Amino acid sequence: MRFSADELLALHELHADYGAALDARELDRWPGFFTGACSYRLQSRENFDRGLPLCVLNLDSRAMLVDRVYGARETIYHDPYVQRHVSGLPRLLQRDGGALVSETPVLVLRTKRDAMPEILVAGRYLDRVVPTPEGLRFAQRWLIFDNDLLANSIVDPA
Amino acid sequence: MRFSADELLALHELHADYGAALDARELDRWPGFFTGACSYRLQSRENFDRGLPLCVLNLDSRAMLVDRVYGARETIYHDPYVQRHVSGLPRLLQRDGGALVSETPVLVLRTKRDAMPEILVAGRYLDRVVPTPEGLRFAQRWLIFDNDLLANSIVDPA
Amino acid sequence: MRFSADELLALHELHADYGAALDARELDRWPGFFTGACSYRLQSRENFDRGLPLCVLNLDSRAMLVDRVYGARETIYHDPYVQRHVSGLPRLLQRDGGALVSETPVLVLRTKRDAMPEILVAGRYLDRVVPTPEGLRFAQRWLIFDNDLLANSIVDPA
Repeated sequence: MRFSADELLALHELHADYGAALDARELDRWPGFFTGACSYRLQSRENFDRGLPLCVLNLDSRAMLVDRVYGARETIYHDPYVQRHVSGLPRLLQRDGGALVSETPVLVLRTKRDAMPEILVAGRYLDRVVPTPEGLRFAQRWLIFDNDLLANSIVDPA
Repeated sequence: MRFSADELLALHELHADYGAALDARELDRWPGFFTGACSYRLQSRENFDRGLPLCVLNLDSRAMLVDRVYGARETIYHDPYVQRHVSGLPRLLQRDGGALVSETPVLVLRTKRDAMPEILVAGRYLDRVVPTPEGLRFAQRWLIFDNDLLANSIVDPA
Repeated sequence: MRFSADELLALHELHADYGAALDARELDRWPGFFTGACSYRLQSRENFDRGLPLCVLNLDSRAMLVDRVYGARETIYHDPYVQRHVSGLPRLLQRDGGALVSETPVLVLRTKRDAMPEILVAGRYLDRVVPTPEGLRFAQRWLIFDNDLLANSIVDPA
């Protein structure tokens, strides 16, 4: 199963834009990558593989994402850091109506002031992308990370 | 020298599928990415650059890959870990008959239980990909890794 | 804003070739990726974001790049290391005349003898790529790195 050239170009654009928004900490742009009803999860591979429900983040509407941005911006005191997303090649798992179901390996690096970059998560995105009048949007974006340990707490979405 | 859009799409699919199979530890799928007569190597850059023969793994038929999978699954006791492949942009080195000779930078992360991801290898694939009735397959896949040290032993292929 | 398939193929080739040349330490090829009048910078994100001028490297003509190669090759004594570039998906920021202005996330790994790979920089390229009779060339390539710390000194360009 293979993406068409058009699909891959559009998906590359969506992934690149998503990563760039978070890496620039333009958090206000984050909810706009999703459909109104959506599912965003940050979950360990161990729990995902066993079908266990516990996630680090589990948000199931764009309104919850907006709330999370407010939380990350206004209510959490934390050591400042920046992120850097480097994602690999997306792989088409399924076409479902107009939706593209895909997985994409990803590294998210975290860099604190006066420190070297460290690997925050290694894992993969499990995405369901749908066409909307504004372009492709995530109906689902789950980041399943290999490490059951997390370095410190998660503040920003990844 | 440049891939056509079709070639690049097909190669992306092959690379993404290869990485996903290993990252999901679907080792039974691994030999199927290769032609019957093939060459798989995992070799340090130092030895490769000097033309020295020693490799960490050197398998020269699909049957040897099948044997390696059996070995990795059934005969080796080791600390459990998972891998994550993040590969960069493939670069066309040569067209040779119907074969595509290319190199692709790659990182392979290894994550153990209750630990953060660590870099297992940084390096590049040196591939020779040929069309078959079942799609593109590796006639050669050599992973030349920059680090002459390896963190512990290699169990799964990379 | 989106690359055409042709633009993306050509840009992939340029990025892959650039990274491969540096990773193979073919430094003589490095200035050839740039136009005669060009800007190459290696700058911390902190300084870039604040509009501060200090860079680790700031070269503004191809002739200066040639000079830097001579310096890296002939005048600097340093612990040997190799690099590995893994870059993510380029993102089109602007079309400006015939130029493509884009950003691309990148990791550069550094590996010393008898040591594991370490992350040298995590960051992004800010590029301005222009068509020339010899193909696409960088009129600008700025590597803005997230880490304000650098592991030891920079010898080779990145």
